[in-house]
Amino acid sequence: MEEIITTYGDLPIAEIESAVEKVTSFIEEYVEEKKYRELRELILQLPSPDIAEIFGETDKKYHTLLFRLLPKEQAAETFVEMDSDTQRRLIESFTDAELSEILSELYIDDTVDLIEEMPAIVVKRILKSSTPQDRASINTILNYPKSSAGSVMTTEYVRFLETMDVEAALTHIRRVAIDKETIYTCYVTDRDRRLKGVVTAKQLLTSELDTPLSEIMDENVIFVSTHDDREEVAYMLNKYGFLAMPVTDSERRLVGIVTLDDAIEVIKEESEEDFAKMAAITPTETPYLKTSIFSIFLSRVPWLLILMLSSTISSTILTGFEAALPAVLVLFVPMIMGTGGNSGGQSSVTVTRSISLSELDFSDLFRVFWKELRVGIMCGALLGVVTFLKVLLVDKLLLGNTAVTVTVAVAVALSLTVTIIVAKIIGATLPIVAKKIGLDPAVMASPLITTLVDAISLMVYFFVSTNVLGL
Amino acid sequence: MEEIITTYGDLPIAEIESAVEKVTSFIEEYVEEKKYRELRELILQLPSPDIAEIFGETDKKYHTLLFRLLPKEQAAETFVEMDSDTQRRLIESFTDAELSEILSELYIDDTVDLIEEMPAIVVKRILKSSTPQDRASINTILNYPKSSAGSVMTTEYVRFLETMDVEAALTHIRRVAIDKETIYTCYVTDRDRRLKGVVTAKQLLTSELDTPLSEIMDENVIFVSTHDDREEVAYMLNKYGFLAMPVTDSERRLVGIVTLDDAIEVIKEESEEDFAKMAAITPTETPYLKTSIFSIFLSRVPWLLILMLSSTISSTILTGFEAALPAVLVLFVPMIMGTGGNSGGQSSVTVTRSISLSELDFSDLFRVFWKELRVGIMCGALLGVVTFLKVLLVDKLLLGNTAVTVTVAVAVALSLTVTIIVAKIIGATLPIVAKKIGLDPAVMASPLITTLVDAISLMVYFFVSTNVLGL
Repeated sequence: MEEIITTYGDLPIAEIESAVEKVTSFIEEYVEEKKYRELRELILQLPSPDIAEIFGETDKKYHTLLFRLLPKEQAAETFVEMDSDTQRRLIESFTDAELSEILSELYIDDTVDLIEEMPAIVVKRILKSSTPQDRASINTILNYPKSSAGSVMTTEYVRFLETMDVEAALTHIRRVAIDKETIYTCYVTDRDRRLKGVVTAKQLLTSELDTPLSEIMDENVIFVSTHDDREEVAYMLNKYGFLAMPVTDSERRLVGIVTLDDAIEVIKEESEEDFAKMAAITPTETPYLKTSIFSIFLSRVPWLLILMLSSTISSTILTGFEAALPAVLVLFVPMIMGTGGNSGGQSSVTVTRSISLSELDFSDLFRVFWKELRVGIMCGALLGVVTFLKVLLVDKLLLGNTAVTVTVAVAVALSLTVTIIVAKIIGATLPIVAKKIGLDPAVMASPLITTLVDAISLMVYFFVSTNVLGL
Repeated sequence: MEEIITTYGDLPIAEIESAVEKVTSFIEEYVEEKKYRELRELILQLPSPDIAEIFGETDKKYHTLLFRLLPKEQAAETFVEMDSDTQRRLIESFTDAELSEILSELYIDDTVDLIEEMPAIVVKRILKSSTPQDRASINTILNYPKSSAGSVMTTEYVRFLETMDVEAALTHIRRVAIDKETIYTCYVTDRDRRLKGVVTAKQLLTSELDTPLSEIMDENVIFVSTHDDREEVAYMLNKYGFLAMPVTDSERRLVGIVTLDDAIEVIKEESEEDFAKMAAITPTETPYLKTSIFSIFLSRVPWLLILMLSSTISSTILTGFEAALPAVLVLFVPMIMGTGGNSGGQSSVTVTRSISLSELDFSDLFRVFWKELRVGIMCGALLGVVTFLKVLLVDKLLLGNTAVTVTVAVAVALSLTVTIIVAKIIGATLPIVAKKIGLDPAVMASPLITTLVDAISLMVYFFVSTNVLGL
């Protein structure tokens, strides 16, 4: 057992998970035997996110006791990483003094995240237990729209006055560092908090102590406003390789910063949302295994219903088709519809991701159309030829289906080619148009496009078979 | 015009893009009039990633001239952000001295990224123009497998000896900072480079100068080995909120670090790969608009072919089906197949993403099965009831299709319910099994599952209609 304790720091990554499991498995025994000091030592070998995992895998009845074993700072770090149920239960078990202590250790933006997950009664207690200054900051952040930069910023940044020199700046950092989310990117303002420049800890560490900040700071500060879209801010942080992005109010006064970790969180959330929407699921934020089956059901069934009912269109077309055409053509309906759906899906997912990554906008509509038209013709032509040969060689010769004629093969191949071209164009342009008119492009990339393409492919097949080939 | 120059630093984000466009539009004029100093001033108002964008949007003939206007450091920063065609052309225009200068400004991992994109002849020149020490580091990194931590690490990190105090450490940082990718997370080793601890710039800045490093460093270092999977390393960096992760060799000697920006890159790449695979596309790394139509064609057409030919299975089943059953049942085939495909797709995308995010592994197979079984029953039951009513009310009463009977409605509804349950279970468990046997779960989440579910849904429909209801 001692082994886990002393060698944790030497474990390669694959074994950390098993270390978490091992520590978890010892908790009951240690608590029963009241070996609290040993238990504390054991747990403290692990980094905070792993300690939070232990809470997730341990019986609730041990939570309060385990939490009290942690030193203040580590307790706060661990608390932030827990799932909201565990957080809520712990808060309910805290005395007012304990709650105040934890809150004083949390960064403001983490407190805001916490508040957003808690029921009203717990929120009240949290606000009551915060210092008046923190409460004011929390309320400011909470008041910004959920999708804005203001809602993900923190008010705890390092700010220097433009009159300071490097020595004064370093002294200031030393004094305030403990409460700041990052000290590596600092901002220089005038007395009215108006943003004047940005200076990094690297610059401070490599400059002479008597250098005025105005000499080393970068005056071309890139900043965002509180109401800018948080997703765009996240992509900018990433693009410029910043650790933090300053956020200003309408008068260019510095009010907060968005840190890289929050930006990564935003990018991850948005990309998981795109995955969900493309699979026709309403996005949820909880991990799959922790989501109740009822929530999963609710996130999936409305889309299944919509798609099912919209497929009625295809069925209706198929009804008319069936009566008018030889039965042999019906055989190829699933293949044409399926290939059309897949072709459209390829284009729509590609274009939707490019929109999400800000690589594409409405002004590119024609370029996209022209690109997909050519790709569609190439794919359509190749698949058409393959299908023509396959229908004749496999269906007619190998399987001996006498109803299959050369004309049938031409009808099937030609319909497939046209369907692929149309599907690619619809799949690629619909998300761009959707974005332009304020709809969500990711939803367009979902099977909704497939449903649309299904209907169109049937009509193309019908049209080609009757009008062009006179079947 | 002057306005752009003087106010760039005050531009809110939405206007940066237009600033790039404006600067780009002035280049030709400035070059023609030989206003090089003004052009340089204009360009230097922009951050490096935006300058790189300007290269992308400007005629090639100006590139060498524009590049020579940039100061050394900014030139290197801009170079790193360019697309590989522009990089290659610039290198070809460089003298050997210029190339050496740029290379000396690049971080090692950026040089490695560059080498990976260049043709052999350019690679030779790059290696020849590097210092012997850099060349050794480059070769080391290039020798690690593409998916390993070693291949994304940099060898330029700050290392302290365990015998140093804070003052010595700060002096060391001041001396080496310029060449290091990050100075904010530093590592403490013994004389043999064996990893002993980690110390942050924040700790150094807030400790007394005579404190020994051994007193403030964190000895529980989490580290990875050169051969660990780069994706897993990226997720760990993110999980623990690190700016860098130390990479060691098999004897626990520090050989490099993976920095957060590279980790973000890995996570982004892997997630875009998942998007591509789920849409049945071979992943490519170039942005959509910059990919040639032939490359797009090649990344899409093999999957369309595979899926099209595999749909032959459904067609074959449908052939048998059609001969044996009343025509009315064929009408509902697209609806049942489509809904089955959508249901399976929902589950497979959810599960595949959970696997990618390391939330799920093979040991969860039964939990996933049990979860999806229940969700499948709920979705299947609800959609079955809706379909039963819809077939009777719409198809029979409203559309007056006399072939539709209550038995037909039961057959359709029951088949749909069973298909949804089966599709959900297949969609959710197949990616987990795929991962276990070393296949790519994201490929399983692609329309391949749809094709499988199509075939199964037809068989279920056939079985229910004939055996259970005797149609």
